[in-house]
Amino acid sequence: MKSISHQEILDFEQRYRATFINSIGGFKSLVLIGTQSKSGNTNLAIFNSYFHIGANPPLFGIIVRPDSVERHSLSNILETGEFSVNHVKKDFYKQAHQTSARYPSITSEFNACGLNEEFHPGFYAPFVKESSIKIHAQLKQKLEIEANGTIMIIAKINHIFLPENCLLNDGFVDLESAGTITCSGLDSYHLTKKIGRLSYAKPDKLPDLVF
Amino acid sequence: MKSISHQEILDFEQRYRATFINSIGGFKSLVLIGTQSKSGNTNLAIFNSYFHIGANPPLFGIIVRPDSVERHSLSNILETGEFSVNHVKKDFYKQAHQTSARYPSITSEFNACGLNEEFHPGFYAPFVKESSIKIHAQLKQKLEIEANGTIMIIAKINHIFLPENCLLNDGFVDLESAGTITCSGLDSYHLTKKIGRLSYAKPDKLPDLVF
Repeated sequence: MKSISHQEILDFEQRYRATFINSIGGFKSLVLIGTQSKSGNTNLAIFNSYFHIGANPPLFGIIVRPDSVERHSLSNILETGEFSVNHVKKDFYKQAHQTSARYPSITSEFNACGLNEEFHPGFYAPFVKESSIKIHAQLKQKLEIEANGTIMIIAKINHIFLPENCLLNDGFVDLESAGTITCSGLDSYHLTKKIGRLSYAKPDKLPDLVF
Repeated sequence: MKSISHQEILDFEQRYRATFINSIGGFKSLVLIGTQSKSGNTNLAIFNSYFHIGANPPLFGIIVRPDSVERHSLSNILETGEFSVNHVKKDFYKQAHQTSARYPSITSEFNACGLNEEFHPGFYAPFVKESSIKIHAQLKQKLEIEANGTIMIIAKINHIFLPENCLLNDGFVDLESAGTITCSGLDSYHLTKKIGRLSYAKPDKLPDLVF
């Protein structure tokens, strides 16, 4: 067992530390955020910080580092109040990763990385045609995290597109049948293999496998 | 392709909606949060909302719903300013899930669910003996999310314990070799299978598989 103190983490070389701390928290949600500026430039960026906040109303959060390539997404979200969230599949994970390159703001990562825009009536933000699960989101709150100056975007789920067969009878979305993959660290991509779903936990008995 | 509006989500039956919205965002980090009250009661609760905030200083966040079983963890964190974060392995995922049952506050989920406490000198919060990756965390900031009254805990990574062989030369933590699993929705558990790690993305070329 290796033991690493806070001071040792601070003393790590910068790139080593970023790789280490980004991977230590476990597997992460992997999504492409699609936006469009008021002047009509589309933008696409990979994020691994989507987190659930609540179901009623349906809310989630993402973390944006303002000094990174994510700054174009952030300014478009603040300008238009909306964005899309698109799941990543194995077929196009290299293109998804490529959106993290530092392109100029007028370059659309859709074209530059080989992914296709998809528009839906009533929504200004572009979706990713290749994704099977797509969410339209509306900006709800912007918070600054004092400790390091990163921005947290709290958003409302406005609309969802998903393949019919992924939505099970109890509302569960079968991500494996949708082809959704996961990631770890800054650059590692993973398929998943279901172990099982467990019954609702009650104090008097251990959970059963239900599916 | 199924299309679901915001109003349709609001109209879903409560349990169906919770299952749906909890699973729509992709795979999630799965951890057990260990705490101890000032009076000495230990507590263990499963969370799937760990998200990375920054590497320098090393910071992360978790979401706590104050009306859930997570309220005991929250009050211990606020009381003592510290907690542990422990990865979940396939060997004990049923015990981990069982910590979500509504036990009385004096019951320790360690005993009730069949997991063992581990203490390390200098840290008051209990760790999970069965976990291979363990983080000691210190409360940094508590934020309330206006939109639904949930609490966000921002914490500093204070210390990390992990198996020697999981830490690769560039700082990457190989979660698969540590046995860490992932989850989706409220009750679905998954192993992962690495597709690959990609090189740092640059505008002029597509990424390569590096590992």
